[in-house]
Amino acid sequence: MIHYGKLAQQVMSRCDELGQISQSDENLDRRYLTPEHKQANQLVGEWMSQAGMKTWQDEAGNLWGRLESSNPSAPRYLLGSHLDTVPNGGKYDGMLGVLAPISLVHYFNEQNIDLPFHLDLVGFGDEEGTRFRSTLLGSRALTGQWPLEWAELVDENAISLRDALANFGLDFDAIPNATISTEGLLGYLELHIEQGPVLEDEELPVGVVSAIAGAKRFDLTVTGMAGHAGTVPMPLRQDALCAVSEMILAIENVAQQHGIVATVGQINNRPNGVNVISGKTQFSLDIRSEFDEKRDVGLAQIMSDIQAIADRRGVTLEKKQTHSANAVHCDQSLQDILRNAIETTGYQARTLPSGAGHDAMAIADICPVAMLFMRCDKGISHHPAEAIMESDVAVTLEVLDHAIKNLNI
Amino acid sequence: MIHYGKLAQQVMSRCDELGQISQSDENLDRRYLTPEHKQANQLVGEWMSQAGMKTWQDEAGNLWGRLESSNPSAPRYLLGSHLDTVPNGGKYDGMLGVLAPISLVHYFNEQNIDLPFHLDLVGFGDEEGTRFRSTLLGSRALTGQWPLEWAELVDENAISLRDALANFGLDFDAIPNATISTEGLLGYLELHIEQGPVLEDEELPVGVVSAIAGAKRFDLTVTGMAGHAGTVPMPLRQDALCAVSEMILAIENVAQQHGIVATVGQINNRPNGVNVISGKTQFSLDIRSEFDEKRDVGLAQIMSDIQAIADRRGVTLEKKQTHSANAVHCDQSLQDILRNAIETTGYQARTLPSGAGHDAMAIADICPVAMLFMRCDKGISHHPAEAIMESDVAVTLEVLDHAIKNLNI
Repeated sequence: MIHYGKLAQQVMSRCDELGQISQSDENLDRRYLTPEHKQANQLVGEWMSQAGMKTWQDEAGNLWGRLESSNPSAPRYLLGSHLDTVPNGGKYDGMLGVLAPISLVHYFNEQNIDLPFHLDLVGFGDEEGTRFRSTLLGSRALTGQWPLEWAELVDENAISLRDALANFGLDFDAIPNATISTEGLLGYLELHIEQGPVLEDEELPVGVVSAIAGAKRFDLTVTGMAGHAGTVPMPLRQDALCAVSEMILAIENVAQQHGIVATVGQINNRPNGVNVISGKTQFSLDIRSEFDEKRDVGLAQIMSDIQAIADRRGVTLEKKQTHSANAVHCDQSLQDILRNAIETTGYQARTLPSGAGHDAMAIADICPVAMLFMRCDKGISHHPAEAIMESDVAVTLEVLDHAIKNLNI
Repeated sequence: MIHYGKLAQQVMSRCDELGQISQSDENLDRRYLTPEHKQANQLVGEWMSQAGMKTWQDEAGNLWGRLESSNPSAPRYLLGSHLDTVPNGGKYDGMLGVLAPISLVHYFNEQNIDLPFHLDLVGFGDEEGTRFRSTLLGSRALTGQWPLEWAELVDENAISLRDALANFGLDFDAIPNATISTEGLLGYLELHIEQGPVLEDEELPVGVVSAIAGAKRFDLTVTGMAGHAGTVPMPLRQDALCAVSEMILAIENVAQQHGIVATVGQINNRPNGVNVISGKTQFSLDIRSEFDEKRDVGLAQIMSDIQAIADRRGVTLEKKQTHSANAVHCDQSLQDILRNAIETTGYQARTLPSGAGHDAMAIADICPVAMLFMRCDKGISHHPAEAIMESDVAVTLEVLDHAIKNLNI
């Protein structure tokens, strides 16, 4: 009989301890290739060793731990998540998906459980992309997708990625050696907090991810005519902010009707004076769906609706696309294994899409992937208020225990 | 036969010359009690003297010029506007209302025209309120409405109004001496650019102001729930910016239906990230009408509508009133004199409200007031692009000529 509750306790206290390693005195901020990255790799590496794993660091600064099968030529499954954080971040986003498996592996080792595959746990050095403004650096190194020009990416202190690797004791030119072979690579599993409110809303501790949504982003600008708030009658106005307000509601409406998410998160208004009619308003659009076609149908509707609003109001609308990524679908058979594992624990096996990006997006290029989501408090992430329940960790460990033992070879 | 066109030429070139006196090298910026204020008073005072006026400066730094009646005990009419500007302002807002009358008075003097009243032309030192963030300082000094606590108002360099007056050679404690007697004070006329597009839209050079709108201003804040743009489904969102967008359209709609003007000129969104659902959005409301009751009925509708939007969307709405001024109605008999003068010149006598505040608002406390508006390019003011046509100045001078000669005693 496994005491999942006791393992969960260990996971919680280790999240607290790892959450102390920060480049900021005031909040949690741990970026790629910093001294704190090195410190985190060392601490987590010790925990991996204590769990009986063979550990190493790859050429991109990712930390690895292997639970070896007794069959040296066995195939391998990857399990993992990331060890970096955003500035002012939380201590579970990423880390939970590395620390929970370590505690489970510790138990596997104690019980002399011999799996028919090598279980390779990886803690990625960069997923958030905070330092070099390009995300998924860690997982992309495994898939061989680091273009040469990345050597010249610079951080906010103008330190290049090449120099940052060198300072860390690594070599940009050796990055291709971090690429892993697809031979005998059976799949990748990732545990992550949901970062959304769906599981909490449905009172479920865990859920299975169907797909990681593909996002498109736009920078939109409406130009009208600034004027005196007192002297321009309503019918003679070309108020940019009023036009944008109508566009924001149109975007919200299309998203609701098409079952996608669309967000205007940023708005900057000019001249932004209390007594001046708005002359120019810039705003962002972020639109996502687990189904690219559904997203693009909604997007076409949005673009047509907001252009019609601009035309009717006599203002101009400029559109600039700033980002585009397609959805990544999780492997059906791995999803089934996770769903079966959840049902074994007595919970309903809810399937939901991930609106946020994850390492699994990159790894999907080289093998089947699947993700297990865990409930988090109010869906909050990327914030010190990020919180999870120890009892949910216990359920998660039980689900992972069942799932790993049922992985196909 | 008067050559209004020649006088208009003089007005235009003097506006250019006065517009050179600025505390900034880059644009026109002339604030209360600065060396440039002193320089402007000196230059305009010389023009007044050349026009045959007796000139003086009062205790608040306002510049005066009198065209004396041959009857020493004659009553008086005031005529005027302001000589200060906003930062990056134009050269007609205010100045036109001082310089055009000087050219006309010059002609009166040349023609030995003897009016049955003293015509007192005043160039107010402060109307815009830029320096001490309290408007109409010049005209309020005439009406005895300077509270003692204004001594401690400070400018952006922490110089108090008391010290600024002293540096200018004036004395805060002597300000009450700037108050003018209401005995024999028959009325106040002000010429000003429209600062709006109505006259241009109707192809009219001038118009008569019915009332100066009373404004109320509010600082409004909507608090929702920030969240990840990818992970929170539309039905679970409390998007502050979406709620504010709906409120902005409700405000626009009420203003249109009630025949008032209402403007949301300022919006500040938090956290304002491309991929973060808006958690808190602050915005301003400026609402005006020439009829206070009409404005307040519209305002009540707006407040009820936006509260209903907040309630329906599950966000909170905080409202803070930051300004309130009642409308000032222009004197009917002075309006009639202006309308008759316009019709004499062959133009239609259009009557329109002023949405912007003017010195006449303050002077209305002590005598009947009226205002003549002149067309300006695209309604633009408070900007270097502020522009007027010389031919409109000629029409304006002709209208003023007729009006002044028909003022009742």
